[in-house]
Amino acid sequence: MQCFFVQLKTRLGRAYDVADALARRELASEVYSTSGEYDLLAKFYVEDDVDVGHFVNQNLHDIDGIERTYTTLTFKAF
Amino acid sequence: MQCFFVQLKTRLGRAYDVADALARRELASEVYSTSGEYDLLAKFYVEDDVDVGHFVNQNLHDIDGIERTYTTLTFKAF
Amino acid sequence: MQCFFVQLKTRLGRAYDVADALARRELASEVYSTSGEYDLLAKFYVEDDVDVGHFVNQNLHDIDGIERTYTTLTFKAF
Amino acid sequence: MQCFFVQLKTRLGRAYDVADALARRELASEVYSTSGEYDLLAKFYVEDDVDVGHFVNQNLHDIDGIERTYTTLTFKAF
Amino acid sequence: MQCFFVQLKTRLGRAYDVADALARRELASEVYSTSGEYDLLAKFYVEDDVDVGHFVNQNLHDIDGIERTYTTLTFKAF
Amino acid sequence: MQCFFVQLKTRLGRAYDVADALARRELASEVYSTSGEYDLLAKFYVEDDVDVGHFVNQNLHDIDGIERTYTTLTFKAF
Amino acid sequence: MQCFFVQLKTRLGRAYDVADALARRELASEVYSTSGEYDLLAKFYVEDDVDVGHFVNQNLHDIDGIERTYTTLTFKAF
Amino acid sequence: MQCFFVQLKTRLGRAYDVADALARRELASEVYSTSGEYDLLAKFYVEDDVDVGHFVNQNLHDIDGIERTYTTLTFKAF
Amino acid sequence: MQCFFVQLKTRLGRAYDVADALARRELASEVYSTSGEYDLLAKFYVEDDVDVGHFVNQNLHDIDGIERTYTTLTFKAF
Amino acid sequence: MQCFFVQLKTRLGRAYDVADALARRELASEVYSTSGEYDLLAKFYVEDDVDVGHFVNQNLHDIDGIERTYTTLTFKAF
Repeated sequence: MQCFFVQLKTRLGRAYDVADALARRELASEVYSTSGEYDLLAKFYVEDDVDVGHFVNQNLHDIDGIERTYTTLTFKAF
Repeated sequence: MQCFFVQLKTRLGRAYDVADALARRELASEVYSTSGEYDLLAKFYVEDDVDVGHFVNQNLHDIDGIERTYTTLTFKAF
Repeated sequence: MQCFFVQLKTRLGRAYDVADALARRELASEVYSTSGEYDLLAKFYVEDDVDVGHFVNQNLHDIDGIERTYTTLTFKAF
Repeated sequence: MQCFFVQLKTRLGRAYDVADALARRELASEVYSTSGEYDLLAKFYVEDDVDVGHFVNQNLHDIDGIERTYTTLTFKAF
Repeated sequence: MQCFFVQLKTRLGRAYDVADALARRELASEVYSTSGEYDLLAKFYVEDDVDVGHFVNQNLHDIDGIERTYTTLTFKAF
Repeated sequence: MQCFFVQLKTRLGRAYDVADALARRELASEVYSTSGEYDLLAKFYVEDDVDVGHFVNQNLHDIDGIERTYTTLTFKAF
Repeated sequence: MQCFFVQLKTRLGRAYDVADALARRELASEVYSTSGEYDLLAKFYVEDDVDVGHFVNQNLHDIDGIERTYTTLTFKAF
Repeated sequence: MQCFFVQLKTRLGRAYDVADALARRELASEVYSTSGEYDLLAKFYVEDDVDVGHFVNQNLHDIDGIERTYTTLTFKAF
Repeated sequence: MQCFFVQLKTRLGRAYDVADALARRELASEVYSTSGEYDLLAKFYVEDDVDVGHFVNQNLHDIDGIERTYTTLTFKAF
Repeated sequence: MQCFFVQLKTRLGRAYDVADALARRELASEVYSTSGEYDLLAKFYVEDDVDVGHFVNQNLHDIDGIERTYTTLTFKAF
């Protein structure tokens, strides 16, 4: 399995709508509202052969209220 | 419990030493080497009354090889 | 109680309308117009179990004239 | 009276030493350890004729462990 | 008296309209078109009790053609 | 005559030494300690044929305590 | 032959449309979706006398969905 | 004579239109399309008493397709 | 196989030493000196189960003359 | 012939030493001290087969007093 994180910057006041929409899709293993530059942080596990870029495009980027996303891939769990 | 994430930028070539040192301390619930601007991402759960800033200072900042850290607090899990 | 600060960048010429609107809501313990990158600084005290992100979303982000906000959480008062 | 805030970035692991040193000087009305880019936030009230720049230089900048400071002046309290 | 400077970034090609409008208001002691990131630099003297933020909001921000402004306060003249 | 401004970032705690040194040289028409990213702002008038870059190099850059400087040239006074 | 790389930032959710459009034009020797600040990375070989700036303008910039591009020229292959 | 350079960032795909328009005005001594953050670089010689800021405003900023410009003044030729 | 790119910023004047050292290690499929913010660009193919972060740490970061590196992972080749 | 520009940031107070050293090498067609983020701007013409990166490394980067350089390549002269 591949584990990666996506940080989401949402339009003003939309963070919780986006979080709910994301949670309802039951794709992320964890979704948090967070402090700092981004509003949300989501964690995903996908099969090794899944194209992460495409996955984010297809499953996140169509949610209304997202301004931009930043994907962090994990290489190894210690 | 409070859940928060810490991203760590390490000196060139030291990421895996720092990750091992962090893992040995068994304070983080998860530690990953990652792509992007930071080298490592660690997830922590602490009691609600714990001062997160102090926790990071006391338990991470003394590990040799760290250049800087960025703490992201979670407000709510969805 | 949790104490946190919110810095607000407003649209050109709207800082004082936003400050008045914020003050009228009597949620912030202090509201200042300030120098520097942001236009306003507000200080809040909320119960420990309050989700700060949600609080900011619900109580600030609907005020007209705000461009963006930056939340700074306090860990400990010395 | 003039009210202003100073955010302090400290060297790695020194935030709480600096906060204690600052608190002991009893110049700040409030001192917090904080999340985000800076480690500490301090609030000051000084007489109107006090030169804030000089005040910060004389009373903060000699504390060991500070990397940089950012002063935010308040124009008006709402 | 308080002395402060305001740097103005104007929309493309509007710098000299904004400068003329500013000069006609006879509020600034000096107005220059400048090199660098900003297009104009204006210097102001106001009474000590004047709220600089409000002054800039009321007297500059309604001039058409301004993209953003950056206020620099002076603490002391040497 | 050419009029230009130089903003100076000084090492921590050195702003007022640098300001005094600059004032003693009686080259600047005005020297201020300031809020914001830079610590000092100085204004100069020099003959039209003076090479401003060289002037700054020769007359400012040898003052101990300066980290960096940013020169803003004025094109026209309104 | 000249070898150069172009990184492409696309509008939210459009990365794979742009990649397909680019691939169909059969101008790039390689096209990848990527992690990090940009969404796509394309590699090109063109004749030495080709004006790379013009090439990018003519052959990439008319593809719908591109926000901005960054061209990296190679000087030498080792 | 004054010599200065202007770097121009153009809207996506418009660099060569802007360059042609600029060349047709026969004001610049040299115009290049370039690599890097900006798309074009133009070099100008004007009389010593010419207000460079105004010159750029009047002669460049009305060309359609320009996003922003950055003027670099030369102090001395070696 | 995983394909990824590494951009390298080297200390002043060391780019070609680093490039030669990298080429001699015969780990990269391509190594270029490049224009722009970074000095070198290297392309790697490794087995799917290879930890890219560790690979970069072990095989690049010990080369003398490197200031920092930026790894870009490819998700899919079009 | 290839035409390219190099902007040079020098250590504080060293701009004119570096400019003189560069001029003495008679490699640049033009060398200017400049306003803005960089201190010097130099223009070069080299044969088409010359590796620009290597040229800058070999002929500029050994001059004492340079902090960093930024190379801008020209694609086409209009």
